Amino acid sequence: MSDVMDKTERTRLRRMHERGHFDRETVNGILDAMPLCHVGYILDGRPAVTPTLQWREGNHVYWHSSSASRAGRLSAGMDVCLTVSMLDGMVMARSAMHHSVNFRSVMIYGKATKIDDPEIKLTKFRNMIEAYFPGRWDLLRPVSAQETKATMVLSLPIEEASAKVRTGGPKDDEEDYALPIWAGVVPISFSVGAPISDPLNLPGVETPDHATNFRIG
Amino acid sequence: MSDVMDKTERTRLRRMHERGHFDRETVNGILDAMPLCHVGYILDGRPAVTPTLQWREGNHVYWHSSSASRAGRLSAGMDVCLTVSMLDGMVMARSAMHHSVNFRSVMIYGKATKIDDPEIKLTKFRNMIEAYFPGRWDLLRPVSAQETKATMVLSLPIEEASAKVRTGGPKDDEEDYALPIWAGVVPISFSVGAPISDPLNLPGVETPDHATNFRIG
Repeated sequence: MSDVMDKTERTRLRRMHERGHFDRETVNGILDAMPLCHVGYILDGRPAVTPTLQWREGNHVYWHSSSASRAGRLSAGMDVCLTVSMLDGMVMARSAMHHSVNFRSVMIYGKATKIDDPEIKLTKFRNMIEAYFPGRWDLLRPVSAQETKATMVLSLPIEEASAKVRTGGPKDDEEDYALPIWAGVVPISFSVGAPISDPLNLPGVETPDHATNFRIG
Repeated sequence: MSDVMDKTERTRLRRMHERGHFDRETVNGILDAMPLCHVGYILDGRPAVTPTLQWREGNHVYWHSSSASRAGRLSAGMDVCLTVSMLDGMVMARSAMHHSVNFRSVMIYGKATKIDDPEIKLTKFRNMIEAYFPGRWDLLRPVSAQETKATMVLSLPIEEASAKVRTGGPKDDEEDYALPIWAGVVPISFSVGAPISDPLNLPGVETPDHATNFRIG
């Protein structure tokens, strides 16, 4: 049975209710498909939106930042909104009004927690690398104490969250279907290219599966 | 000569200065490549980030919203941050620390203006459709007064704005180049599929060039 989150005043949909999803399966599926996220925070009383990468562990989402970064400092302990979205297609209808896009998005509201314990931070670095590139962590040069200090890890519980999804073709006003206007969808997806090896790689070092098999979207 | 914007306390880069761009050519190129944007606004004193589509006209960026939408209402006349970003590749280094992504992003800060004049709104609807699908507007069923009323158009001057761009391969610590660890880049791009015609299109209606030639990214 799918785990469903409570709607709140912030997450309930005011319009297009059929596009809203509150089950963790849908929310997690979107978070896991797209590392790119946009974190909203308050900067001098005004909103700011910084793109960064997120990864998920259970019912928490994590992201990192330089300890010197303003976005990180202004998020730690503060209310943020983390949004992940993917454009899946351009939907062309017979009227301008009904043009739309196919998309998947998740919005998560909450207070961001900064992780201070160096050992937990190290585990989070590992989980981040492994989330994107399974098996890579153990191949890497170990992280130094200075690097751990220089990197901030933030987390947000996936509690006050919702997904929005649109799929399918255009929906026109009934009478507009009689018009000789082309309507349809142009699908958009992500394409992952073949790995480009660093020319400075040592001879004989082979491209690992986690590079060749990387998938997104 | 390229038109360069002044840096402000909000747009100057605190780190990685080499990634910052303040010339309109770079900023406009990113905005024109990616309609998907994330608008940050304040909801009950806390940040919210809503994905929507933007288009550019000269030194202004525009987006639309339902008149019933909370995101639109809370943006009109208020401070917002509009961010556009594209993930161009996953960059794998020899240490966890130097893992990175190739990306292009733009952040625009400012007060959003709602366009109220119905005739100007109509021009903006046209410009939006034409920005994505050149030649489509004149084929469509005309917009009704009710539809104009139901749709909000917002704009933001591209004045307090900056772009950030990372390209190329991994940059490792000097001593790490001696390690037998694969480093490199997995390129990510957008792929546009062949248009899918609505099965309810009238017989003989052909797929227009603006659907076949749609490009993104």
